[in-house]
Amino acid sequence: MTTFNFCAGPAMLPTEVMQQAQRQLCDYNDLGVSVMELSHRSAEFTQVAEEAEQNLRDLMRIPDNYAVLFMHGGARGQFSAIPLNLLKTGGKALYIESGQWSVAAAKEAAKFGDVDVRDIRIGKGDIDLSLFGDTSGYDYVHYCPNETVDGVAIYDIPSCNSPLVADMSSCILGRDIDVSKFGLIYAGAQKNVGPAGLTLVIVRRDLIGQQHTATPAILNYQLAQDNDSMYNTPPTFAWYLAGEVFKWVKGLGGVAQMEQRNQSKAQALYQFIDDSSFYRNEVNPSFRSEMNVTFQLHDAELNQRFLAEAESQGLLALKGHRMVGGMRASIYNAMPMAGIAALIDFMDKFAQSHQ
Amino acid sequence: MTTFNFCAGPAMLPTEVMQQAQRQLCDYNDLGVSVMELSHRSAEFTQVAEEAEQNLRDLMRIPDNYAVLFMHGGARGQFSAIPLNLLKTGGKALYIESGQWSVAAAKEAAKFGDVDVRDIRIGKGDIDLSLFGDTSGYDYVHYCPNETVDGVAIYDIPSCNSPLVADMSSCILGRDIDVSKFGLIYAGAQKNVGPAGLTLVIVRRDLIGQQHTATPAILNYQLAQDNDSMYNTPPTFAWYLAGEVFKWVKGLGGVAQMEQRNQSKAQALYQFIDDSSFYRNEVNPSFRSEMNVTFQLHDAELNQRFLAEAESQGLLALKGHRMVGGMRASIYNAMPMAGIAALIDFMDKFAQSHQ
Repeated sequence: MTTFNFCAGPAMLPTEVMQQAQRQLCDYNDLGVSVMELSHRSAEFTQVAEEAEQNLRDLMRIPDNYAVLFMHGGARGQFSAIPLNLLKTGGKALYIESGQWSVAAAKEAAKFGDVDVRDIRIGKGDIDLSLFGDTSGYDYVHYCPNETVDGVAIYDIPSCNSPLVADMSSCILGRDIDVSKFGLIYAGAQKNVGPAGLTLVIVRRDLIGQQHTATPAILNYQLAQDNDSMYNTPPTFAWYLAGEVFKWVKGLGGVAQMEQRNQSKAQALYQFIDDSSFYRNEVNPSFRSEMNVTFQLHDAELNQRFLAEAESQGLLALKGHRMVGGMRASIYNAMPMAGIAALIDFMDKFAQSHQ
Repeated sequence: MTTFNFCAGPAMLPTEVMQQAQRQLCDYNDLGVSVMELSHRSAEFTQVAEEAEQNLRDLMRIPDNYAVLFMHGGARGQFSAIPLNLLKTGGKALYIESGQWSVAAAKEAAKFGDVDVRDIRIGKGDIDLSLFGDTSGYDYVHYCPNETVDGVAIYDIPSCNSPLVADMSSCILGRDIDVSKFGLIYAGAQKNVGPAGLTLVIVRRDLIGQQHTATPAILNYQLAQDNDSMYNTPPTFAWYLAGEVFKWVKGLGGVAQMEQRNQSKAQALYQFIDDSSFYRNEVNPSFRSEMNVTFQLHDAELNQRFLAEAESQGLLALKGHRMVGGMRASIYNAMPMAGIAALIDFMDKFAQSHQ
């Protein structure tokens, strides 16, 4: 039975990447050791690290005036690092709230300085981008273009009069974007990039260097930049796997190709849900996430049966986040169209037998 | 050719553990997915996590009044976390300096509060434990029982009148110790535990809860304890591998057995060095590390040739740290006696042909 893993994160990785990692696990490039047993300062790992960065730069067309940092600590680490590095004495940041993660980011930032918060949610599954309001005069403006829990996405890059900071944990490399419109982009790896424990930070270099005195070294952008993300031992295996994922995306044609794939996948699933009276998605179609498709059964009593039968068919981890309930199919870059087809087929049969 | 990897870290992992990880990499326990593709909140990963903790508790006989935390960020993350969590307003910490890492820890701590420093080094490769001095009245006293760079170790647990904090990154599970003598023990995983990116923290529960307001969430012991180290997504694959290493240590007879192995390995290597006029180790025999054996060639001009010939014989990563020079053989738990024998055999032949 083919298994399809719809976990929101840690999420499935591309099958080809995992198979390659398995072949190389005990003997990387005939060195007789695993890549995770190499010194991070060895010539061999330096090549892994540099290739990964270059491939990410190529894929996202990252301008030279942006640093690419490979950091510890997940996106939550960046919830702290961003104010510690970007929020100046006497300055202020603006946090736009559009779902669970942007709310959490704002709460963490308030520990480190002065923060304004604007909630742009209007009722269930809807947002109003005009509520970004006046974005002038802030050290930065933070938002989350894809809310994993809520299945809500913002596709148009907001015009912003202060450096724009985006939590792209669950959408990086999913769509082609213009990096130069951002001050900083960050992403926990465990959705579209690699295993948990690695975080990507893409930051305009002129924003680096204003960190608070009491910034923990592992969260200090200046130190990370000056030491090629090796001020301390980085999570080397995660970095290697991220590099393999970047090669895989390149091999499939790059981000524009991923974007097409992702749109086809999401459209097929949303279309099926919209055409059904058994399932429903409650997000305004303009803001539906291509990465995390939330849906409810018409009868919530059937939820457990749906999950159990799905699992018996090899369709895993479809349970919605506990704060939203219902179901969620996370269909990141690594999910093939065959997974969507299998899910739709199962959902259709389940609906017919429980209508 | 059998390869032996003497890297100081990321270090070799037990061969049996790596082979098992390779078999399971794409299909963990017949689930059809990798352990790194499982939700950290799934029943399957919860079992991995709980078993790892229980096995570590068994191996180290960790009392119930100690929390075991699995954290992001390496030991350097803890350099910040320890003062942020343990250093009270108006309080003071004492840092004992015995080598590169304890010096770095003290420097980082001073960002977050008031720190006294005592350097106990007396000349090259020697320390004086009486220089710990009066340890009363501190929020904690920090030291590093095994200095990876310098090859200097402190085996007797210092008697201390304040909570004793130990950086055991390069010696945890290497010797049997009495955890109850410590307030906090921490260790980056990449030497004796698992891959880089995971850090173990063993902390007496009554020391938790005094964290500064501006403590980044990922470094907050209270949050880590209250959320079973899952306040944010932990580095799940590293956690799993650490659990496999714990099982491996148990299978070999536990920490007491590792300690015997380690003593035999280190004694054999130091004995060979001491008997040789070609090599020398400059550390006071009472403080020689069993984990990191530093040595110099009588003629430093031969260093490059030594390293190249060693590598051609499958003896990898013997170059000493750039701050010390010469050679260093890191022989953590995973290094078998056969690796020591192969190293001594090579060193002997090299000496004979270059005498």
